[in-house]
Amino acid sequence: MEKSRPLILITNDDSIDAPGLKRLIDVARPLGEVVAIAPSEPRSGQSSAITVNSPMRIVPAEEYNGVTIYTVNGTPVDCVKLGMHAVMSRKPDLILSGINHGSNSGNNIIYSGTMGAVLEGCMLGIPSVGFSLLHHSLKADFTYAMPFVDKITRKVIDRGLPDGICLNVNIPSRCKPEGVKVVRAAHGHWTEEYARYEDPHGKPFYWLTGQFVNAEPGNPETDEYWLDRKFVTVVPARPDQSALDAISSVESLLD
Amino acid sequence: MEKSRPLILITNDDSIDAPGLKRLIDVARPLGEVVAIAPSEPRSGQSSAITVNSPMRIVPAEEYNGVTIYTVNGTPVDCVKLGMHAVMSRKPDLILSGINHGSNSGNNIIYSGTMGAVLEGCMLGIPSVGFSLLHHSLKADFTYAMPFVDKITRKVIDRGLPDGICLNVNIPSRCKPEGVKVVRAAHGHWTEEYARYEDPHGKPFYWLTGQFVNAEPGNPETDEYWLDRKFVTVVPARPDQSALDAISSVESLLD
Repeated sequence: MEKSRPLILITNDDSIDAPGLKRLIDVARPLGEVVAIAPSEPRSGQSSAITVNSPMRIVPAEEYNGVTIYTVNGTPVDCVKLGMHAVMSRKPDLILSGINHGSNSGNNIIYSGTMGAVLEGCMLGIPSVGFSLLHHSLKADFTYAMPFVDKITRKVIDRGLPDGICLNVNIPSRCKPEGVKVVRAAHGHWTEEYARYEDPHGKPFYWLTGQFVNAEPGNPETDEYWLDRKFVTVVPARPDQSALDAISSVESLLD
Repeated sequence: MEKSRPLILITNDDSIDAPGLKRLIDVARPLGEVVAIAPSEPRSGQSSAITVNSPMRIVPAEEYNGVTIYTVNGTPVDCVKLGMHAVMSRKPDLILSGINHGSNSGNNIIYSGTMGAVLEGCMLGIPSVGFSLLHHSLKADFTYAMPFVDKITRKVIDRGLPDGICLNVNIPSRCKPEGVKVVRAAHGHWTEEYARYEDPHGKPFYWLTGQFVNAEPGNPETDEYWLDRKFVTVVPARPDQSALDAISSVESLLD
């Protein structure tokens, strides 16, 4: 008896036009039945945002490698929610998100639309993994990344993930990775440098830019440390943000 | 010597037009120097989304109770980031977000724009608290809620918060709360019931709706349990989603 083939949902935040989406389809295609549902427009930085104040459409937009790619005029989380509601025959066995064109390391997970879809899948009880390549270009070369994406995907299909846990995988670019490290996200912050402009009427407007500043360089417990050393990093992440260990101290301070 | 007055940043996700924003200004006004920066349009469900692909403006839009309210054509996190960059003289000592018109209990914190601003403040090392009233109407009555908002705000100004921890406060509506419980967020999920429509050309479109289903009713460790019993709930929340306790099991399964 052959084991039934898993149903795999693929999404991203870079939109249907991003090559990284198709690389994930290539990985998943031999491993199960695949449905791809991507934002119709780029949705980087959308976190776990959902569209509540406007209507959405979901439409089959393209066939690739035997897989129908649907688009949703919404966020990555909308792709998961509306996709499961409107076009999937049953709950998927696995959600893969990415491959993102650009890093989601450190605490950037909180802004990441790639990881928004993954956290959503995890809350729905579906093993879910986000993949990001440390290269922003749409022309980025995924060659060295693919064996790692393939291996991690196969392991998660075979073995599942712990309850309430999803994975945030970041992959160095432009070199063959040295190996895989399972670590936590580095703490840091963005230097909030906005580019400032003036419109033709002399009124200012701003555009977000800035650099991620690692608050703990040199700490081998963190993803940034190993990414700097050309390792693939896997951060186990939990959607539940309740801080159980802080309950008693907060009780005291509110007393 | 008088202690210098704290600088308090107030924001929300319901926009400058929401009465809950002004109720927070009323609470903060006697306690410090207040700057209010709110989205120019409602931004419910925006999570920790940031605006990366379009320009933003920040403009003084209204004076209320001696406080200038600025608007940003962005998300709640954009309000915090751009506000601190463009209009605040120094890093605020406290961020208050809300009072949201509607619940942010259970795992809805992950979608909440109100809490997106709070998590952002926390990552910046600023004591940050989100307040939500369990009533969606813009005409909601905040009378019973205000003494609790006032007390919690004063305690946090006096005593600070543990490192890396912010607060998600939910307040019952239409009754005098019985007291305050510090608890964790209830697990649950939304029944993804989308309203389905057809446009005049016969093509479908969808609008998000649905109900939150509490997966653990009857569990007194959770916010939902106490909100049902008319208590104010305070959930200590942590922006860092790394699951340290899952690192070794994930190492094993990827091996």
